[in-house]
Amino acid sequence: MSRQLNVAVLGATGAVGGEFLKLFESRSFPVGKLRLLASERSAGRRLPFRGEEVEVEAVRPESFKGIDVAFFSAGASRSREFAPHAVAAGATVVDNSSAFRMDPDVPLVVPEINFDAIPEGCRLIANPNCSAIILLMAVHPLTKLGRVERLVVSTYQSASGAGAAAMRELEEQTRDVLEGREPRPQVLPHVYAFNLFSHNTPINEHGYNDEEWKVIHESRKILGMLDLRINVTCVRVPVLRAHSESVTVEFVGEAPSEEAVREAIRRAEGVRLVDDREHNVFPMPLAASGIAEVLVGRIRRDISHPSAVSLFVAGDQLLKGAALNAVQIAERLLAAGRL
Amino acid sequence: MSRQLNVAVLGATGAVGGEFLKLFESRSFPVGKLRLLASERSAGRRLPFRGEEVEVEAVRPESFKGIDVAFFSAGASRSREFAPHAVAAGATVVDNSSAFRMDPDVPLVVPEINFDAIPEGCRLIANPNCSAIILLMAVHPLTKLGRVERLVVSTYQSASGAGAAAMRELEEQTRDVLEGREPRPQVLPHVYAFNLFSHNTPINEHGYNDEEWKVIHESRKILGMLDLRINVTCVRVPVLRAHSESVTVEFVGEAPSEEAVREAIRRAEGVRLVDDREHNVFPMPLAASGIAEVLVGRIRRDISHPSAVSLFVAGDQLLKGAALNAVQIAERLLAAGRL
Repeated sequence: MSRQLNVAVLGATGAVGGEFLKLFESRSFPVGKLRLLASERSAGRRLPFRGEEVEVEAVRPESFKGIDVAFFSAGASRSREFAPHAVAAGATVVDNSSAFRMDPDVPLVVPEINFDAIPEGCRLIANPNCSAIILLMAVHPLTKLGRVERLVVSTYQSASGAGAAAMRELEEQTRDVLEGREPRPQVLPHVYAFNLFSHNTPINEHGYNDEEWKVIHESRKILGMLDLRINVTCVRVPVLRAHSESVTVEFVGEAPSEEAVREAIRRAEGVRLVDDREHNVFPMPLAASGIAEVLVGRIRRDISHPSAVSLFVAGDQLLKGAALNAVQIAERLLAAGRL
Repeated sequence: MSRQLNVAVLGATGAVGGEFLKLFESRSFPVGKLRLLASERSAGRRLPFRGEEVEVEAVRPESFKGIDVAFFSAGASRSREFAPHAVAAGATVVDNSSAFRMDPDVPLVVPEINFDAIPEGCRLIANPNCSAIILLMAVHPLTKLGRVERLVVSTYQSASGAGAAAMRELEEQTRDVLEGREPRPQVLPHVYAFNLFSHNTPINEHGYNDEEWKVIHESRKILGMLDLRINVTCVRVPVLRAHSESVTVEFVGEAPSEEAVREAIRRAEGVRLVDDREHNVFPMPLAASGIAEVLVGRIRRDISHPSAVSLFVAGDQLLKGAALNAVQIAERLLAAGRL
């Protein structure tokens, strides 16, 4: 990978944006020119990169001239506005927003699962919802062991999924509670300190919230299993930056043995088996924070079903759930000579 | 209820013990003589009750002489040791430990569900596991709407379930993290601040931990549905005193409508419907803390199953999950002239 790339990050000042810069350094991503883009409000801020400082510019339609790859993480409306300009300027866009994920013409990619979904010449790739990525990193290896027909999922989602401001709010509210002050929710609608609540996205006519709907439909698209039945309940818990999920995987016919599931997780790329019954050590969000791998454990046959397996997963929402997955997409395109 | 009762509380200095004293006051439980019992270590401490102070005594086999009703909350081994003495002395024991719960000769009771399981003359009654009580307060009303065949449950359990020391540990660790110190787990095995972990009880040969096993077997006994299939994953979250649970209830044949479920919850005793989709207000542990009712909401048809309903529950672990349920058992016995 000796070729240097001109790289843009849109949403550079956000929680995910900051992770892009760290990943470019830690993974030696071949950044030539780096253009940091954000809203007008953040323009002029300077962010550290490779020992220097890079000034954040206000994003404009012409910001993408000469850019090879652009990582978007500034919300769906900005993606809808600026992705066409970036693509027209010749950039390949990896978009972390929900804007294009369910567009049948846009591949939705977790590289370990469906990198092949990116057609030759494609220049707009959607990065999936964080809860979907973390779920599927654990579930995809199991789809090779038998025919999966249903997932039942309850999530334990961290503050980072609502951005850097929500992470600060969790810390500030918690300090308030410990020091006897009334916590005042501002970023999220409910008290977050020592509390938890149903994911604060609108509820549709089926009773599912937007986050749950994304997990259901994005998972089907990524796995290429359009009739996979999924029930998911998304909950925000007072954890800073990694999502956890309690997952039951129901198979048609016989379920794989616990040992076959463990072996599948051991062999799969990007996941790490943490399943120590003797010492009661299983995936925890703190252990998953700051690392690339998604942790998988608590693997057991579901005693309530003739052919199901239950497990527990934890993965860094900002890394594999967002920035890392996007960088991995770009790395694979580059390795394939497609960037 | 003009008759005054001589009451003993074993485990008076614990988190649940403290709730007993508050409940006796707030519910005007007719306490005549009050005897507070604990281990030798806590003897001599004085606890406030009705404006006075009551001294804690070290429990002995003869401590129960003249006692009408004894509330035990000092762990299974103390219950096994002292319940026979209390019963022999003529007391009725409501035991909050796991010691006798699965004993076929001991009724395991949630009063709203199976008060009738207490036979005439019975003087040892088991109070169920907190997660089981909170789960069943939501599920029992649904059993009247159709034949329930399977529950899939993931819990979000608070610190109080591990006692007062765990509650203090969560607060202290959180303060440590916010002030830049390394948190040091002492009561619980993992870092608790801004983290979560699988329930720290031993794992059996089926891969389920003790807490999960209690929920499965106690639920079957309480509901009188010995072949009910239950999958449960028990997780401790950094919340202080209320447990939450994500629950899917699968029916044989057609599932009840969402509105029928809501109506069943509205009509049921001891639960409160909190199900405001428009304003995104659903059960939260903070809202459930300190109140008698178990909150039930997020009611929806499970789109992954032809006849299932999903919901979310939150209930105070120290109240309905422990002390309140025990006091309610005694209140009903008293009202029936059986104390």
